[in-house]
Amino acid sequence: MGPKDFRKDRRHFYPKPGQKPAEKAGRPAGKPPSRREAGAEWLYGLHAVQAALANPERKLGRAALTPRAIETIGKKLLSRVQVETLEPGAIDRLLPPGAVHQGAALEAWPLKSGTLEEVLAEPGPEGRRIVLVLDQISDPHNVGAILRTAAAFNVAAVVVQDRHAPPQSGALAKAASGALDIVPYVEVVNIARALDQLADLGFWRIALAGDGDTSLAEAVPAGDVALVLGSEGDGIRRLVREHCEASATIPISKAMESLNVSNAAAIALYELRRR
Amino acid sequence: MGPKDFRKDRRHFYPKPGQKPAEKAGRPAGKPPSRREAGAEWLYGLHAVQAALANPERKLGRAALTPRAIETIGKKLLSRVQVETLEPGAIDRLLPPGAVHQGAALEAWPLKSGTLEEVLAEPGPEGRRIVLVLDQISDPHNVGAILRTAAAFNVAAVVVQDRHAPPQSGALAKAASGALDIVPYVEVVNIARALDQLADLGFWRIALAGDGDTSLAEAVPAGDVALVLGSEGDGIRRLVREHCEASATIPISKAMESLNVSNAAAIALYELRRR
Repeated sequence: MGPKDFRKDRRHFYPKPGQKPAEKAGRPAGKPPSRREAGAEWLYGLHAVQAALANPERKLGRAALTPRAIETIGKKLLSRVQVETLEPGAIDRLLPPGAVHQGAALEAWPLKSGTLEEVLAEPGPEGRRIVLVLDQISDPHNVGAILRTAAAFNVAAVVVQDRHAPPQSGALAKAASGALDIVPYVEVVNIARALDQLADLGFWRIALAGDGDTSLAEAVPAGDVALVLGSEGDGIRRLVREHCEASATIPISKAMESLNVSNAAAIALYELRRR
Repeated sequence: MGPKDFRKDRRHFYPKPGQKPAEKAGRPAGKPPSRREAGAEWLYGLHAVQAALANPERKLGRAALTPRAIETIGKKLLSRVQVETLEPGAIDRLLPPGAVHQGAALEAWPLKSGTLEEVLAEPGPEGRRIVLVLDQISDPHNVGAILRTAAAFNVAAVVVQDRHAPPQSGALAKAASGALDIVPYVEVVNIARALDQLADLGFWRIALAGDGDTSLAEAVPAGDVALVLGSEGDGIRRLVREHCEASATIPISKAMESLNVSNAAAIALYELRRR
């Protein structure tokens, strides 16, 4: 099946709820997985479920809820979906072991992101525009936590590389606490090219790294900023760093090698919104 | 067995490595679990294992390491313990499912914390002294992440209530990335009483809460600060909040209800060390 057939046949890539994403989506052999082909995932946790229900862009399946969660969420939000009333233990069995669902699970298809240009064409909130660029951060809890903080600080977009970002799983959505449906999550093919686009759009690109040239407070100019964060193991790749105007660091004690990446992102966003 | 016997017989509360903590530690019936009675836990992850090996206060059992981890950690640190060379899969089987051990696991007994007075009697690093007080934050990943950031910002002590804090588990130590062996982790019986002690020692007590009276930047005075953080679900308990001089908030977008508690702690520590 050639690329043209693949595009024509896109309906095959939205399997019915309950089907497993990749295997049953009939992905052509040799083609890397992409978000567009993925099937429904169970989202869980009250905030994640409420945000997905409130997002008109979300394609949804059925909801599995305890009576208490139904009361908390309310009939208005639930009018979009088929609701099954279940005991907590029955919801447990739908989800990965240990998932903290708070009585709420919802089948949802991954969001299809717009392009960076589309997302940034929309008017943002007051103040500077901030874009976070995640260079191969693969842990879903970290990416989810970063999305949550990004929403809290009015970030215009979180950019990830589609082949190396974690899928929009229930674990990611739970850590994001609803933010996956609030902050545009833009999946790009090439991070370096996305940084060039951001430069063309007037963003000052700062790589946040343990060995950055200046402190973050000194590195922040007036105006729009794209902040690049790397994986905890390997940091930002050299090529990606070369596409930044500046590198900056958060001053910490020599007792510790580094900050957790979502904590570093939170501090950086606070600093960027502070003035 | 009365309390006096319990103290005399303390050696019973250090079971040999391999025994399960609570059940085999011979805890007197009706007595709540406390860190002193706990047995050995498997710590895992390179940073957590290295920090425990480097801490002379740590009572250690055996280490289970891959050849590569042995090379990374080095013979000097490993001279204290019996080392078993294992394949990654064999280390997997020693640990909870999904534990990311990086080829390193180490049996270690929980650290016995000093009292708040003992810990604060030691000279701290330059600048103001900061104490974090965690009011019933029970998630080990959050507490571990808070310890990691606390070590990065030279926090003098992290105070928890011994009956409501998570045990010093492998998951907590992994999230702390070695910080459990760097920052004093002080387990107290009563948080409100600990706050009174901190006031006597000259600390200004700030409750960090979504509905705080002023922004954190405005609430921070010169001098020593005790910062109180509550659980994500319930926040800081009323009685604990009444033992603070001020309440403060981190300004965020209305789109999100709250920040993750470890991200809020990171931002607050950055703000406290910024000046």
